[in-house]
Amino acid sequence: MSPEGPADLADTDLVRACRRQPVRRTPVWFMRQAGRALPEYRAARGTGSILSAIDDAALAAELTLQPVRRYGVDAAILFCDIVVPLHAIGFGVDVEPGKGPVVAHPFRSAADLSRLRPLEPALDTPHVSDAVRLVARELGGSGVALIGFAGAPFTVASYLIEGGPSRTFTKVKSLMHSDPALWGQLMERLAAMSVAFLRAQIEAGAQAVQLFDSWAGSLSPSEYQRFVLPTTRAVLEGIADLGVPTILFGVGTGELLGLMATAGADVIGVDWRVPLDVARTRVGADHAVQGNLDPALCVAPWPVVEAAARQVLAEGAADGSGTGHIFNLGHGVLPEADIGILSAVVDLVHAESQRA
Amino acid sequence: MSPEGPADLADTDLVRACRRQPVRRTPVWFMRQAGRALPEYRAARGTGSILSAIDDAALAAELTLQPVRRYGVDAAILFCDIVVPLHAIGFGVDVEPGKGPVVAHPFRSAADLSRLRPLEPALDTPHVSDAVRLVARELGGSGVALIGFAGAPFTVASYLIEGGPSRTFTKVKSLMHSDPALWGQLMERLAAMSVAFLRAQIEAGAQAVQLFDSWAGSLSPSEYQRFVLPTTRAVLEGIADLGVPTILFGVGTGELLGLMATAGADVIGVDWRVPLDVARTRVGADHAVQGNLDPALCVAPWPVVEAAARQVLAEGAADGSGTGHIFNLGHGVLPEADIGILSAVVDLVHAESQRA
Repeated sequence: MSPEGPADLADTDLVRACRRQPVRRTPVWFMRQAGRALPEYRAARGTGSILSAIDDAALAAELTLQPVRRYGVDAAILFCDIVVPLHAIGFGVDVEPGKGPVVAHPFRSAADLSRLRPLEPALDTPHVSDAVRLVARELGGSGVALIGFAGAPFTVASYLIEGGPSRTFTKVKSLMHSDPALWGQLMERLAAMSVAFLRAQIEAGAQAVQLFDSWAGSLSPSEYQRFVLPTTRAVLEGIADLGVPTILFGVGTGELLGLMATAGADVIGVDWRVPLDVARTRVGADHAVQGNLDPALCVAPWPVVEAAARQVLAEGAADGSGTGHIFNLGHGVLPEADIGILSAVVDLVHAESQRA
Repeated sequence: MSPEGPADLADTDLVRACRRQPVRRTPVWFMRQAGRALPEYRAARGTGSILSAIDDAALAAELTLQPVRRYGVDAAILFCDIVVPLHAIGFGVDVEPGKGPVVAHPFRSAADLSRLRPLEPALDTPHVSDAVRLVARELGGSGVALIGFAGAPFTVASYLIEGGPSRTFTKVKSLMHSDPALWGQLMERLAAMSVAFLRAQIEAGAQAVQLFDSWAGSLSPSEYQRFVLPTTRAVLEGIADLGVPTILFGVGTGELLGLMATAGADVIGVDWRVPLDVARTRVGADHAVQGNLDPALCVAPWPVVEAAARQVLAEGAADGSGTGHIFNLGHGVLPEADIGILSAVVDLVHAESQRA
């Protein structure tokens, strides 16, 4: 095998853990590992919009690789944003620093469906595929996997409908309940967009993908089952033929884990509220789990973080299989996180999980 | 019995449901039912600080009674705020409209303990006791209960330490883990404050009390058990001799319900993420449950709300006991809630739960 051939690229602990195959050691990466906690990130990014940085494939590739060099993590995650496809088709979305996605004219009625044309990655997001190729080439043979990602339809819809980040999700919940037909059409379009975006990343060299349904935990189980799960399943079915492992993640999803496990993903991401041994019983032995150190702890002194990380490792290994756990935070790295602490976490995970 | 005597005051469906005694119909009230959704509230409050409104016992009593008149709910909850005791002892806290509590000089170290002198309700918060007396007199014999409340030590501590509302709770988590001794001293003082505040309200005529640990759901089960539960238990033990029912509430507490049920409260409040029949299995048959209509739905058309409210009623009654469910929202009324919808919810709950 060539050191840069596809078979070699897939032979990483990250991919093996997703598939519950034997690993050399428990793989570890951090959601939002490319971010303001890193001085090299702040230097390279400057003050421009994140969407401009993503437009620049070389810069996006560099930002993707920085945390691999800094932390020694087992996976890079593409530097990108879940609203990139919407932005690319001209829906009118921007990402405000410190706030998040904002939509100038939120989705309100059936008339807005016409603003959601299909994504054509080769024309609309060639820079994203270029960045994937650049990173995949750089990582070839290193044992570090490249993870692509997209927003799950519900979480993307929440920004479209609320017009920005929300704590209550009143508008999106009102729409799904009061006009299920329109909701279904919207979710179908967003699902197609996520499928196209993920397929392009996989075809360009991503060896695994994560579907971010970050805000699914705001829903009740019956809402999730009726209004979200079918479309999430459709996204995962839409990329199944490509054969890369898939991770489905959301925050505050304790009550949803059993349902999420039926969506077709290989791995379920879990936040810090549910101990991983409990999470494993909810998602079943046919799934791997990812998580779940509390990102808020990564500003605490090392002994605090060390104890918490050891607890995550122990709970992640409690099923005795020796695999099926991807160490991560329970949500993204906070800008104020101590990067020395994060490096020490990676070293601890590697040292403690080294197989004989 | 005199129509205003204590025995009569306690003979309400709210108190009976807390104690899992037979009820005439399922009692219903709404967290934050006195608030900006009501035009009469906006007219009476004007634009002044909430703390000034609370200082005025007659105004606080009026604001407490408005939602009883408007919605026909089975309980009034005292118009007050969880930071009132802190404000009263001069810790330096204010409540900013649209933001919440802000602390000018947050709690940082052991030196700040000296800023937390004990609360003496007769001297520090006589206006609160006065408001309770005014409302209790007004409600005497009406079958409507008056609920007093306090913040649970963790949630109060989170404001003290973070300096205001937080999404991540980094500082409070860091302190509890890195300096458990100081954390314990802080929690002990806040517990004593909550006990004194609740006792004064009960002695003035509150027939039930709710302990708001609104942000406990940000913690992992092991954090809650180690750093929060013992003090919460101490608060509830500190008022047990007064014999009024107690309600313990937090948001996003799905993983904590079993632990919360060991704190000594009669009722566990549950948000919309956990169906009430599931919640009942977690808290056990020796507890009542309160909740859990999603407040975000109270902006949706009536058929949506009706279906959701009927589901809550059915899940709340699934144990077949015919009692032990207090209908409420899963969190506070949103300012944009439709007050006609909330009235209709009260009517629906009453009509559907009328015992033969």
